[in-house]
Amino acid sequence: MTTDCSFLDDLDLDDDQVSFAEATREAHDSDWGTKPGDEVLPDAVVYPESTADVSTVLEAATARDVPVTPYAAGTSLEGNAVPAHAGISLDLTRMDAVLDVRPEDFQLDVEPGVMGSAVDDAAGEHGLLFPPLPSSGSISTVGGMVANAASGMQTVKYGEVADWVLELEAVLADGSVVTAGSKAVKTSSGYDLRDLLIGSEGTLAVVTRATLELAGRPAQIRGGRAQFETLDDATAAVEDAVQSGVDVAKLELIDAESAMMANAYSGTDLPDRPTVFVEFHANHGVDEEVAFCESVFAAHDATLFEVAEADAGMDELWEARKDLAYAMQSWDPELTPLHPGDITVPISKYGDAIRYAKDLADEHDLLIPCFGHAGDGNVHYSVLVDEDDPDAVERGEAAYRDIVEFAIERGGTCTGEHGIGLGKREFLVREHGEATVDAMRRVKRALDPTDTLNPGKLFPETVDGHRVRDGDQ
Amino acid sequence: MTTDCSFLDDLDLDDDQVSFAEATREAHDSDWGTKPGDEVLPDAVVYPESTADVSTVLEAATARDVPVTPYAAGTSLEGNAVPAHAGISLDLTRMDAVLDVRPEDFQLDVEPGVMGSAVDDAAGEHGLLFPPLPSSGSISTVGGMVANAASGMQTVKYGEVADWVLELEAVLADGSVVTAGSKAVKTSSGYDLRDLLIGSEGTLAVVTRATLELAGRPAQIRGGRAQFETLDDATAAVEDAVQSGVDVAKLELIDAESAMMANAYSGTDLPDRPTVFVEFHANHGVDEEVAFCESVFAAHDATLFEVAEADAGMDELWEARKDLAYAMQSWDPELTPLHPGDITVPISKYGDAIRYAKDLADEHDLLIPCFGHAGDGNVHYSVLVDEDDPDAVERGEAAYRDIVEFAIERGGTCTGEHGIGLGKREFLVREHGEATVDAMRRVKRALDPTDTLNPGKLFPETVDGHRVRDGDQ
Repeated sequence: MTTDCSFLDDLDLDDDQVSFAEATREAHDSDWGTKPGDEVLPDAVVYPESTADVSTVLEAATARDVPVTPYAAGTSLEGNAVPAHAGISLDLTRMDAVLDVRPEDFQLDVEPGVMGSAVDDAAGEHGLLFPPLPSSGSISTVGGMVANAASGMQTVKYGEVADWVLELEAVLADGSVVTAGSKAVKTSSGYDLRDLLIGSEGTLAVVTRATLELAGRPAQIRGGRAQFETLDDATAAVEDAVQSGVDVAKLELIDAESAMMANAYSGTDLPDRPTVFVEFHANHGVDEEVAFCESVFAAHDATLFEVAEADAGMDELWEARKDLAYAMQSWDPELTPLHPGDITVPISKYGDAIRYAKDLADEHDLLIPCFGHAGDGNVHYSVLVDEDDPDAVERGEAAYRDIVEFAIERGGTCTGEHGIGLGKREFLVREHGEATVDAMRRVKRALDPTDTLNPGKLFPETVDGHRVRDGDQ
Repeated sequence: MTTDCSFLDDLDLDDDQVSFAEATREAHDSDWGTKPGDEVLPDAVVYPESTADVSTVLEAATARDVPVTPYAAGTSLEGNAVPAHAGISLDLTRMDAVLDVRPEDFQLDVEPGVMGSAVDDAAGEHGLLFPPLPSSGSISTVGGMVANAASGMQTVKYGEVADWVLELEAVLADGSVVTAGSKAVKTSSGYDLRDLLIGSEGTLAVVTRATLELAGRPAQIRGGRAQFETLDDATAAVEDAVQSGVDVAKLELIDAESAMMANAYSGTDLPDRPTVFVEFHANHGVDEEVAFCESVFAAHDATLFEVAEADAGMDELWEARKDLAYAMQSWDPELTPLHPGDITVPISKYGDAIRYAKDLADEHDLLIPCFGHAGDGNVHYSVLVDEDDPDAVERGEAAYRDIVEFAIERGGTCTGEHGIGLGKREFLVREHGEATVDAMRRVKRALDPTDTLNPGKLFPETVDGHRVRDGDQ
């Protein structure tokens, strides 16, 4: 399926803003979660450099029924940025400016293509930080974080990206430019279109500017790790720490398999046993808080609790934790991670969720390393299978679905921070129910009646298993 | 204008759930912000006792083009609960159960008619609290807080009500029941209908159940007040405290006029000068934080800084602060508060906003006491006028509009925590722009195409100044 994108040559864009070159199109046919063979070539790639450019392209594309799929770093996991119905890949990476920093209001304005780490850097010049920065911050953009409702290691203390977005400028499919939210820290003025756009995966609008909130850097930081003999001890310690109100800024768990893979990939020397990484932020009394956490962990038989002032050694551990996704991919050339992603459950179900995944691994004779933002009840799973072994694939698929179903059945979510994209569409109705998904569809049709924006995403395919655009139904 | 509500007798409801009695209808014709003469009688009052009841009423009303306006405590300020187009007042106060408390997940489920203070009480039984509880928590319901995107004194530290809502069950105009959000602390699954419904003032759906998040009670609490010779000193101290990153749980300012009125109403003996109330929450090191705040305030010539362990004396001060709305109303029998409400600005504009209001008071020879959640950049104004003096009313109206415009022009909002209702409709487009308000209207039409739910609210009247229902245009 291709669309006629020749109209792009007639728009008020520079020559270098439009490409029909195969190499360029191929660079926009997938994201990190796309399996070989599932790529979809866009018919053209457009590089807007301003809000006006985005508006021009969207208005023209909508008039011609040509799909537009926003793209930036391409580091999404669920196919969110794949141009499932071809058309235009709208590459926002040239809109990467930090437009304004207002430290007196803890705010900055950025374009969507700016990297998360650049936000943190710009904030750092004023002694501030962007607390919800995802672990992938150095390789993912603000636009992607907003589109996929991302979060990060510090979400356990500071909240999600969504909690730190004050205002969004965005372009609707018809080319109109809206401003959602306020630069005030709170507002009750009209519908909250800001949070409606956050997590809508580019299916409702294209974000062209974001005003983000910042926080002061804490005066005291401590970081380190704890180890446990058993996985059940580790998850019980995590649950207890959260339930006891330990004020922790990062609370991450990696299981023995993940530790093993991290060592192989990152050259760390983590013991191959369940490890919990922690970090504490405070202006006063941080060591009392560390001691409190240590006492909670001790009650769950921690075999090691090693926390010190944040230093380079700790940074290495964090790097290993951040690189786990790569580590899983490169562990065994014969094993491929099947649908890597995440679920999130209420914290009291966290240990059960991890245990369930491990039991499934045993039952199906699979390797399922788990890690994630434990303090949020978040589990990143990776079902590793030999894709040349159909039986293994079938068992892996079953295990994957069971893990996701487990989360949904316990009041949790099928995707904590990577969106629905293509990969999790089958779970949308299962999680929310028909009536709720129907309401979502009504919102989609209201703001994008021609289904121009990122068609095929988020909503389940309903016609004969064939990808259909929402407007077709 | 009246509607035929006789169909209510045929629905599956008990006799005592439907009332056509004039006294009952009169009890639902206004909210706290309604001026005498602006009341609107509903044609009937219905008391649902379950989600199914709400669904039954909405489906039937939509089929008959009868407006339905949700109602609970009636303590809104902007006419949010007034049945502007008559029809049914849907009184949710019978749905006031705390359904489930899950302290292990810091969660509870409540019906919409439960009082905010009852939420805090239920949480308190488990050593938890509901941090964003509005000052009006003992006289306002969870449904109202959610509908109006409320916040409270502790928002400066803990965020708004919206930040503590995990999941909402709600009924759309067609009677379908949706579940928005998740019981996981984070999700990126589908559109964020939860935050779309929060602050939608009952115009998109009727909330029938809310899962709220709770927090642990801090081990250390300190509270007290500071006084300043001048209002400029006080507001500069507030700005500096926020900008310096003082970890304060409450940061409230009342000006000299407000202090005077509080004394008269509440029997307190506040000096008639600008006073800043503070409260600090921490598990460790609270006294260091208090000292930090004191040093910041000292740099702005605080004449008093009195902070101690929270005790009954402090509670009295907080009560006086909470009762300020009453104090303004009863100050002078000849003076009426014109459009009492609030604005919010970025914190660096807070002092300017207060100064501007005071200059307007001088210019127009009016009394405009100001108070509010200073740490949020929030200003509650009350323009007091003698309503029998047309010239005073005109000057008062001009001052009111100028205060609101000031906030909008500085990137702030025309309403920080009381919604748009009827009162602030004229500012909606001014704040958000035509394209954004048009997008809001498209969402309204998508979810409530017949304009059944709370018609006449939020969106500006556009036809000859006559109240028209959204669907009419």
